[in-house]
Amino acid sequence: MPQKIVTLGEIMLRLSPADFRRIVQAETFDVTYGGGEANVAAALCNYGLNGFFVSKVPDNQLGQSAINHLRRYGVDTQHVIRGGERLGIYFLETGASMRASQVIYDRANSSMAEADASEFDFDAILEGASWFHTSGITPALSDKSAELTLAALKAAKAKGITTSMDLNYRKKLWSKEKAREVMSDLCRYVDVCLGADTTLGFTSKHMNEATGYLTEDGYKDVFGQMMEKFNFKYVVSTLRQSHSASDNGLSAIAYDGKEFYRAKQYEVRIVDRVGGGDSFASGFIYGLVSGMALGEATELGVAASALKHTIPGDLNHVSVAEVMELVRGGGSGSVQR
Amino acid sequence: MPQKIVTLGEIMLRLSPADFRRIVQAETFDVTYGGGEANVAAALCNYGLNGFFVSKVPDNQLGQSAINHLRRYGVDTQHVIRGGERLGIYFLETGASMRASQVIYDRANSSMAEADASEFDFDAILEGASWFHTSGITPALSDKSAELTLAALKAAKAKGITTSMDLNYRKKLWSKEKAREVMSDLCRYVDVCLGADTTLGFTSKHMNEATGYLTEDGYKDVFGQMMEKFNFKYVVSTLRQSHSASDNGLSAIAYDGKEFYRAKQYEVRIVDRVGGGDSFASGFIYGLVSGMALGEATELGVAASALKHTIPGDLNHVSVAEVMELVRGGGSGSVQR
Amino acid sequence: MPQKIVTLGEIMLRLSPADFRRIVQAETFDVTYGGGEANVAAALCNYGLNGFFVSKVPDNQLGQSAINHLRRYGVDTQHVIRGGERLGIYFLETGASMRASQVIYDRANSSMAEADASEFDFDAILEGASWFHTSGITPALSDKSAELTLAALKAAKAKGITTSMDLNYRKKLWSKEKAREVMSDLCRYVDVCLGADTTLGFTSKHMNEATGYLTEDGYKDVFGQMMEKFNFKYVVSTLRQSHSASDNGLSAIAYDGKEFYRAKQYEVRIVDRVGGGDSFASGFIYGLVSGMALGEATELGVAASALKHTIPGDLNHVSVAEVMELVRGGGSGSVQR
Amino acid sequence: MPQKIVTLGEIMLRLSPADFRRIVQAETFDVTYGGGEANVAAALCNYGLNGFFVSKVPDNQLGQSAINHLRRYGVDTQHVIRGGERLGIYFLETGASMRASQVIYDRANSSMAEADASEFDFDAILEGASWFHTSGITPALSDKSAELTLAALKAAKAKGITTSMDLNYRKKLWSKEKAREVMSDLCRYVDVCLGADTTLGFTSKHMNEATGYLTEDGYKDVFGQMMEKFNFKYVVSTLRQSHSASDNGLSAIAYDGKEFYRAKQYEVRIVDRVGGGDSFASGFIYGLVSGMALGEATELGVAASALKHTIPGDLNHVSVAEVMELVRGGGSGSVQR
Amino acid sequence: MPQKIVTLGEIMLRLSPADFRRIVQAETFDVTYGGGEANVAAALCNYGLNGFFVSKVPDNQLGQSAINHLRRYGVDTQHVIRGGERLGIYFLETGASMRASQVIYDRANSSMAEADASEFDFDAILEGASWFHTSGITPALSDKSAELTLAALKAAKAKGITTSMDLNYRKKLWSKEKAREVMSDLCRYVDVCLGADTTLGFTSKHMNEATGYLTEDGYKDVFGQMMEKFNFKYVVSTLRQSHSASDNGLSAIAYDGKEFYRAKQYEVRIVDRVGGGDSFASGFIYGLVSGMALGEATELGVAASALKHTIPGDLNHVSVAEVMELVRGGGSGSVQR
Amino acid sequence: MPQKIVTLGEIMLRLSPADFRRIVQAETFDVTYGGGEANVAAALCNYGLNGFFVSKVPDNQLGQSAINHLRRYGVDTQHVIRGGERLGIYFLETGASMRASQVIYDRANSSMAEADASEFDFDAILEGASWFHTSGITPALSDKSAELTLAALKAAKAKGITTSMDLNYRKKLWSKEKAREVMSDLCRYVDVCLGADTTLGFTSKHMNEATGYLTEDGYKDVFGQMMEKFNFKYVVSTLRQSHSASDNGLSAIAYDGKEFYRAKQYEVRIVDRVGGGDSFASGFIYGLVSGMALGEATELGVAASALKHTIPGDLNHVSVAEVMELVRGGGSGSVQR
Repeated sequence: MPQKIVTLGEIMLRLSPADFRRIVQAETFDVTYGGGEANVAAALCNYGLNGFFVSKVPDNQLGQSAINHLRRYGVDTQHVIRGGERLGIYFLETGASMRASQVIYDRANSSMAEADASEFDFDAILEGASWFHTSGITPALSDKSAELTLAALKAAKAKGITTSMDLNYRKKLWSKEKAREVMSDLCRYVDVCLGADTTLGFTSKHMNEATGYLTEDGYKDVFGQMMEKFNFKYVVSTLRQSHSASDNGLSAIAYDGKEFYRAKQYEVRIVDRVGGGDSFASGFIYGLVSGMALGEATELGVAASALKHTIPGDLNHVSVAEVMELVRGGGSGSVQR
Repeated sequence: MPQKIVTLGEIMLRLSPADFRRIVQAETFDVTYGGGEANVAAALCNYGLNGFFVSKVPDNQLGQSAINHLRRYGVDTQHVIRGGERLGIYFLETGASMRASQVIYDRANSSMAEADASEFDFDAILEGASWFHTSGITPALSDKSAELTLAALKAAKAKGITTSMDLNYRKKLWSKEKAREVMSDLCRYVDVCLGADTTLGFTSKHMNEATGYLTEDGYKDVFGQMMEKFNFKYVVSTLRQSHSASDNGLSAIAYDGKEFYRAKQYEVRIVDRVGGGDSFASGFIYGLVSGMALGEATELGVAASALKHTIPGDLNHVSVAEVMELVRGGGSGSVQR
Repeated sequence: MPQKIVTLGEIMLRLSPADFRRIVQAETFDVTYGGGEANVAAALCNYGLNGFFVSKVPDNQLGQSAINHLRRYGVDTQHVIRGGERLGIYFLETGASMRASQVIYDRANSSMAEADASEFDFDAILEGASWFHTSGITPALSDKSAELTLAALKAAKAKGITTSMDLNYRKKLWSKEKAREVMSDLCRYVDVCLGADTTLGFTSKHMNEATGYLTEDGYKDVFGQMMEKFNFKYVVSTLRQSHSASDNGLSAIAYDGKEFYRAKQYEVRIVDRVGGGDSFASGFIYGLVSGMALGEATELGVAASALKHTIPGDLNHVSVAEVMELVRGGGSGSVQR
Repeated sequence: MPQKIVTLGEIMLRLSPADFRRIVQAETFDVTYGGGEANVAAALCNYGLNGFFVSKVPDNQLGQSAINHLRRYGVDTQHVIRGGERLGIYFLETGASMRASQVIYDRANSSMAEADASEFDFDAILEGASWFHTSGITPALSDKSAELTLAALKAAKAKGITTSMDLNYRKKLWSKEKAREVMSDLCRYVDVCLGADTTLGFTSKHMNEATGYLTEDGYKDVFGQMMEKFNFKYVVSTLRQSHSASDNGLSAIAYDGKEFYRAKQYEVRIVDRVGGGDSFASGFIYGLVSGMALGEATELGVAASALKHTIPGDLNHVSVAEVMELVRGGGSGSVQR
Repeated sequence: MPQKIVTLGEIMLRLSPADFRRIVQAETFDVTYGGGEANVAAALCNYGLNGFFVSKVPDNQLGQSAINHLRRYGVDTQHVIRGGERLGIYFLETGASMRASQVIYDRANSSMAEADASEFDFDAILEGASWFHTSGITPALSDKSAELTLAALKAAKAKGITTSMDLNYRKKLWSKEKAREVMSDLCRYVDVCLGADTTLGFTSKHMNEATGYLTEDGYKDVFGQMMEKFNFKYVVSTLRQSHSASDNGLSAIAYDGKEFYRAKQYEVRIVDRVGGGDSFASGFIYGLVSGMALGEATELGVAASALKHTIPGDLNHVSVAEVMELVRGGGSGSVQR
Repeated sequence: MPQKIVTLGEIMLRLSPADFRRIVQAETFDVTYGGGEANVAAALCNYGLNGFFVSKVPDNQLGQSAINHLRRYGVDTQHVIRGGERLGIYFLETGASMRASQVIYDRANSSMAEADASEFDFDAILEGASWFHTSGITPALSDKSAELTLAALKAAKAKGITTSMDLNYRKKLWSKEKAREVMSDLCRYVDVCLGADTTLGFTSKHMNEATGYLTEDGYKDVFGQMMEKFNFKYVVSTLRQSHSASDNGLSAIAYDGKEFYRAKQYEVRIVDRVGGGDSFASGFIYGLVSGMALGEATELGVAASALKHTIPGDLNHVSVAEVMELVRGGGSGSVQR
């Protein structure tokens, strides 16, 4: 019986022009559905775990399609509530070379953003679960969503379930100040923290002048502060070198309060980078849930994330075997026949 | 110098699955842009007139794409304001045979629905225009939209411009009671009224028991009452016999306060029936603007509408010559080569 | 808690050229997955029941895709076994007008055709089920498949579960003689029989000379013989008037041993007629399971089947509400907005 | 060893918007290649004969693609010369219902239109052939093309090869007067004449007032005059009732100097009517070449033409078996499985 | 009120296979419209200027579609004349890696190539304009086109409008000798010259032996000679390092008679390189028109050109803000969300 | 009269998702047909030789489509027999970056795998041929296929025709031991051997530790042993450096018993690498058949292979001129216009 992992968040309709077209050139949109936590649930199902996704979608064909997309890839959607006004939408314009990908959010007033904590019986939902995951996107949706996220985290902690939070700051959803306030509250119920961005407000003098990003020493510095304040079990962050919209370097750094672990770096030719962070999260969670050491779980996360960048859509359609083969040194791309 | 015709309304992003797929089956959506009054403006440009569309769209690539779509087909969009939250969206699932087409509206809080009358200088916008057209969809968007529509109609009347209103009741946007109240107010500024649906609340005992629709006598009865109350110059209504989602019979009936005119009936095999009413309106308006008699203008409207049903998208890509050929007895479908 | 309905059969990869192309013209194939009993399970899920599909697929991405397709539409696939050589394939060329649709089967040696009865624990599979359904296609796959079908039917009867069998004779799979022998054996365990084709070998003098099909009297005659021999609870058969590959008339006739029920006839403009019979079966089963009288269930089946003909793919993506609306006299195809 | 049939004419690149789009809406064009005589050659190959196509195409990838398209379907293209300026193009906009299909020719200065009779060694090309076919489109291309057609016909007659000519008047290519003059000259070398349009200038008082077409008596009258003047062995003409761009009635009438033969009439739902006449010609020629009587060959031609209307593209991808099945009363469109 | 910029040239239908297919593999063509000067006009509209395009297109749906494409993106097409024989076509086969892109021109006898200077009232067309732009492609079309170009340049100079000429030598259109003669005549009316190719016949001993291209010193040498002979205000040339069909290095060098300016170099992963030079021209012209210094305008041109390489089609769908962000050091491709 | 080259092997239906989708994401498959030896025959036709392909395909539309695909590109298919059960299929999932391409074979029981040597009259088939080519895939299909291959090779040798064999070991088709045994027997009739993989069982101590591949010295060592045992005229092997699924380095090494030739290395950005080896073989064979020295033929083979990697599908659509241009130093990717 595979372990039950519960994720909470919003799932959106994703619309994107094909073949590097800009939105003003689009005569068709590719249709798929995704969202940070839903993406994590689906990847965990690919890895053989029992992924649940908790959310609210409208009671129409679009809400049904979002549910169907997750069911197709094995996610248990029995706790997705139906109702509310609309399904959130995001338009994704895939960039290339020096032209960055663009996202237009059209998610205000979505069913999930307006869902009330009272609509979910987290005690029942979390029954038998071994892990609960959400991200900083969910509390950013609305004040009600922040309350909902808090309720879920509290319920998980009350049941002794490990909780993880991907900070995932989205500047189009809320201000840094608001984010810091809300997230600091939520993090009190978090065991495993993914991300070291500005959400929680920690800084370090170890910055790369040119890029404005933390150096490796900076990450260590910030991780230390995060540990101290929130008493996380683990902190981990992906490290992305964005050479261009077509090529990125990917790695990660993790900390367990004692030692730092820096993962192998991959250079990826990008097909679709949306969901890359969620793929790290799901690989990492899978590793920990499966009893791997922190370093090994981090390697798994990075390899899973690298593979995701080669697959269109939000979801990471890879098996554990494929991820492990890359961790072990594969990736040379010989045809399998 | 072609005559200037001004239309006011909302333009939306239209998303529809291809090849008769249902939304739950869609992996791509065909993308186009449309809306009742925008459709009228574009058709009038095809007929050689100078069509203007007045609206508000968000200041992003989606708003720009809506404008671009109209510009592509010749509409003057200089009076489309940019701002607000979002572009309204409608999802269209094209039916076939006994399966009806379905529309899912996702247009709440659109830039146009939240636009304020004060943002438009109708005096300048209408300068030099010979006709102003809008529909019952626009005031249904919000109270602000109803005020905006009223302001536009008043300005047009003040400048001596002929005004037309397509009643177009949409039950998903407002109640019958609200519609009746608002529309009755607006109709005081309308010269030419299209439609005889329940919006204005007139009824007749001449009903077809089976379908619940007015009979021809019923239309005459209702038209008479409408004339009496609002002193319209003309009232006209399309007559649609919906045999199935694939086949419809199309005609129209018009009244000038003295005589009724019943147009020829066409049996159409449907490719896309959205915009069929707008095509009637634009053909009819073109006819009147060009100095045709009421009967001739009505024939033009019906023929234009019939042709629209054979063209995908919201817009009617036909020329006056093509419409006139059908009016004169064409339509046998021989290849032109 | 919705009722559990179990179906047993083969699911295949379906490949078809788009836009009425012949296979020799195809540069792409539309990809979907389907099979008689799988189609029934999916439709029952659309109607709110708990549909299970039992089968065997290869342990590769194609087998997984077949499972995913069913999961997407809500089917419980926990009893689909993985292993064997290959997923069966069928190529479908969609006809039009006087050109008939063509099917090329490439299903020999499929995982399901070579599955052994011992691989399935029907006692566990059928636990809690209220209905079991299969078709004459499954025992036609191979001798092992015939044994498997028999084992399933026996297990169902032993548990007091209602069983239904769609005769569905496929001349490309077996001879009439072989079919008659095997099916006669299986029918001893069947409660509800769908079909009156030559599979069971009954004939009547009441034939339409021109078409070679049974007349209504012929159906009554044959139904009587079937009842007598197999003691079915109900016998029902769809009646299809194939005017052309584009237009068909659809009805059905049912018999409960006492009275005959002839359903309303629908004239359909065809989008995709594959799965039309399965849609009748699922509508009919839903009706009976929901406690409807035989006549009402038959009407539901025919309306569901008519709607299926307007939807591409093997599955019937309609709700009970949509079917009931057609039964009650809808189908005029007005846009819902 | 199948009989060798030689056809002479132009092959063009055909570009058409999909899904009933008008050209102004097209973002892609479907690409195929066709031309009256090339279409005949390809169909004859489908029927098991050895079809040759003689033409000239430019020495670039477009010319090569035209050749490849014919080779794909079995046509012998060894006598297609390469050189000249360009491949002719035609844009086809597929109509529906009362909107007629439109053709835009862009074929001036094509390699074939500028080809010189001296470039072809018809004595060698026709060696061993049993039939030569061309149409009135070829001499209409240019004066040089007219000379080329004459040279081919003379060479065929000199070798005792049966010759056929499809009159196929194209008003966009030449005037009636020019056509009459040139065609009258060419017809002196023709054995089998297809068509009774105005090309040759014969008329009859038996006209349908409403449509302006000949009645059946009119055809008989004109056929008699044609026979008398040109001493044809057979004259035959398709009869098309164009109800709309979506539905046509198809039949044919033939005359051997003694008796008239009127073929069965088919009502077709049209997928693509281009090449319908060429399909009649190839079915009819196949029938005669195979030793059928005039009436039987005419039936074959009409059935072949009816089937062509259900297939996209210029070519008729059907086998003799499929045509014969329709002649014998098939066409009800049951799925073959 | 944005400045008015007038461009003169030919617009063509562009047909290209998708997904790196060769033309012989194409079953569809992507459809767009473009041409050097039209591309410049459209980009200038994206930058907020008032771009006009002057040309002649046939009076059919293809000519209309070309106009529509420009209108869609804001170009003023009121001075595009309708008439003549045909719209020029070019077939583009997009290369990859070591396979170069291929262009097949089919533009002879186009409406624009046969347009006469007398058909355009340049005095009226240029009224109020601040810049006039054309390229060496336009006079290469025909002798009449050369006269037309001369007439336009003279009219512009007579009105004191700044003129620019992109040399753009096309060996498939004319010989070097003819080009040199005609262009030398035209350059007497040119203020800003783009390009330093062999059109004008200047050479330098500073050549890269391996590539046969000018070195930077060679450009300076040639620019000096050009300045001396034609008294240009500015000379500028893009510098392209074509590593392969997939990767190019892009820069530019400019000269104002006193100082040379060498722009930053970008390494681009190519999506579509057609229109890259036109994008440089439009960025550069925008810079100068907006009052930037030569160096700054050159940087803008190169950045605009680099971004164009990431966008399918002929046109450069980027805003000034996007170009400026790249100039200022963006281009790392982080998703904007 | 071009030389006749005969190849023997299996042709399969190839199905692949577009746009880097995984099979579980596919809603359409791109359709093409290919197989090692068929690919060689088609490329040789592109080079102006007279390529024949010998095989067996089912007598249905799929078998016909495979034949048509080869005819389209000029291959003589008169010796392709029709019959048997099915056309082999392979599903190709195109990888990117560190995700390798995947092949799922579904080719068991294909018409070719079950073909008997007695069905082919190789004496007649090979009449007039100057070269015979096959690969290690053909004898791997079945024991009957191995016998068939042997019969063909013997017949070729008996007629004094040069024979070539591409070792092409496929681990999914047979074991190394079986391969070694069968291939060793067949190689006695082979003049030119392509490949140095483990099929024949030779090894060398000169291995690259990291990759497990032979070093250049290792190839020389193994080539020497192969020469000694089988007395080949030439041995040649491609050298592929698989950096990732997106980027490969390509070269080759050849040996004539006296000297080794190492070809130039190309770095390719991959569009489709299937058929890359067959493209080497066809370029190499063309070189030898055309009288080139071994080194030159090897260069031709590598350049042809490099170009193939930029073209979708199994076949190499390039001309000799294009290959030679790359050999001579082209490949910089400038647009040809």
